[in-house]
Amino acid sequence: MRICRFTPHGWPDAEVRTGAAVGALDAPVVVDLAALLASEILADGGEAGRAADLARAVFPGSTVALLGSGGRAESEARRLLDALGDAEAALERSGPLGAHAYRRDAVRLLAPVDRPPTVRDFFAFEDHMVNALRNLGREVPQEWYEAPSHYVTRSASVFGPDEPGQWPAYTEKLDYELEFAIVIGRRGRDIPPERAWEHIAGLTIFNDLSCRDVQGREMGTRVGPAKTKGFDRGCATGPYLVTADEIPRPFGAGMRAFVNGELWSEGSAATIHWSIEQIVAHASAGETLLPGDLLGSGTVGTGAGIEIDRWIKPGDVVRLEIDGLGALATRVVRAAAGED
Amino acid sequence: MRICRFTPHGWPDAEVRTGAAVGALDAPVVVDLAALLASEILADGGEAGRAADLARAVFPGSTVALLGSGGRAESEARRLLDALGDAEAALERSGPLGAHAYRRDAVRLLAPVDRPPTVRDFFAFEDHMVNALRNLGREVPQEWYEAPSHYVTRSASVFGPDEPGQWPAYTEKLDYELEFAIVIGRRGRDIPPERAWEHIAGLTIFNDLSCRDVQGREMGTRVGPAKTKGFDRGCATGPYLVTADEIPRPFGAGMRAFVNGELWSEGSAATIHWSIEQIVAHASAGETLLPGDLLGSGTVGTGAGIEIDRWIKPGDVVRLEIDGLGALATRVVRAAAGED
Repeated sequence: MRICRFTPHGWPDAEVRTGAAVGALDAPVVVDLAALLASEILADGGEAGRAADLARAVFPGSTVALLGSGGRAESEARRLLDALGDAEAALERSGPLGAHAYRRDAVRLLAPVDRPPTVRDFFAFEDHMVNALRNLGREVPQEWYEAPSHYVTRSASVFGPDEPGQWPAYTEKLDYELEFAIVIGRRGRDIPPERAWEHIAGLTIFNDLSCRDVQGREMGTRVGPAKTKGFDRGCATGPYLVTADEIPRPFGAGMRAFVNGELWSEGSAATIHWSIEQIVAHASAGETLLPGDLLGSGTVGTGAGIEIDRWIKPGDVVRLEIDGLGALATRVVRAAAGED
Repeated sequence: MRICRFTPHGWPDAEVRTGAAVGALDAPVVVDLAALLASEILADGGEAGRAADLARAVFPGSTVALLGSGGRAESEARRLLDALGDAEAALERSGPLGAHAYRRDAVRLLAPVDRPPTVRDFFAFEDHMVNALRNLGREVPQEWYEAPSHYVTRSASVFGPDEPGQWPAYTEKLDYELEFAIVIGRRGRDIPPERAWEHIAGLTIFNDLSCRDVQGREMGTRVGPAKTKGFDRGCATGPYLVTADEIPRPFGAGMRAFVNGELWSEGSAATIHWSIEQIVAHASAGETLLPGDLLGSGTVGTGAGIEIDRWIKPGDVVRLEIDGLGALATRVVRAAAGED
């Protein structure tokens, strides 16, 4: 299942729906799960107002809330999709909560996970470390091989497929990072690697926009990336949360980054040094993982401009593709001062 | 005003109230603002159920929500406290939402700010940098003097005065850090230093528990403190959010840390190198500060065990005192595996 969050064009921003993307990864039909459920309750003899309220409670538009339902919302979604049959036909139907489905270009897709409780980003690909540090005149530190490395960044930085990324006023050297992210589905602490998948809801694409000029200073203080990453609209995610049952294990998907349509980066998730299972185990030591937590994989080898010495400029569109997860295109735009 | 969050002993955990602490910093009367307001609405001829609902909406038990009210909730709190007169007398009165006030030992005080959108911790005191790095055989890097340094940590790590801190299973060398934290009250981005106080709700005490043995490895990878800090119950805060109107500027309060009653650390907020105003300005560049965001000051000079080579052990109680902000005592306890 490919879970998304969306607002139909022309609707108020506050009206966020939980969707399931059906059909082609790039041009899906977006099924409105709450609308489907409300119509079903009505057809079963329920009242329209109560049908709408119940449906919104099960599919609240927040994936963090959806994942916190102990599996009930996901089961209900699967049942509704099974009963749906032809998604194209759903485009023609509607009920108390509006249309049952929309074409991709009729909606604004939002970050598949709204405000994760915690966003951690790992550095799990050795090739990226070697390439990026070579260009800074350094070798991969021995400590990197002792345990997975990560930093914590701002949840408020996460944004979705149909919003521009921010080119912060304080950088002249913005870069992209070709990553995937693990989405946690079930609470847990001190999770052993062999139980990691019990806590994983699925995966999504992750573009961790990074200011390389600022990074030099922040690496010098050894306190990690602060202004380098995690600024407003700095962590692009999406387009879907692809659920764990659709993820091959081990995850060895092809990963590609295009800038203005030109292929700049190509790699494979199979080259990861620290596995998904090791990442989850490490993160959860002494820390409770919560539904909606994002754990970035780190950049795949050659998956950032710094590794290949090619640099994006304001207005460029960076499109990340990962087999099975879809494509996430982000235009980077200089923000006006004071603007959110 | 000293805002706090509390649950009366014996009440369900989910019943969280917004309080104002009146009287002695260490043994205040905790006034229940929602209870006061509900009784006032009732006395004005309102219905009891509606009075309770309205009062809970104004004072929802969440400080993040309270600060998001555009100043309305704070104004209402001040009005209610002005009208209250004698807080001791309020101990005897009650209404639709229960007692109007409680003695300190009749309630469990919670973190004054529930789940800050972002927790940033700065390293703003030069003396701490010099002392801590000397013990690691290093000097303060030049980059530290170029701009304020900070890292982002987990909001889910924040806990309050009446809970134990976690001694993570993976450390043998836990340390305390004597800090204060800035609490943001009003949204803003790219805030100039001279407007910083317009966005500050107030200050609280902050004890950033840190695993010094893990820190060695994490400093080596230069990606900052990840498992070192920000584990479950790693960021002690409280006991109050002391509002900005009660904070002298510049803030030069005496700061002390006691371990099991013995004075270990003593310093002054006046020795800060990067000012509160500079911290707010730096954090807000390209990042929207949100109501409830916490910005730690960093440790005051000699305010951590690593600086004085004294080490706490499981079961110890660390008590931080800051003039005007009160005292925050935290017992550090080894957690059982898998426990939240």
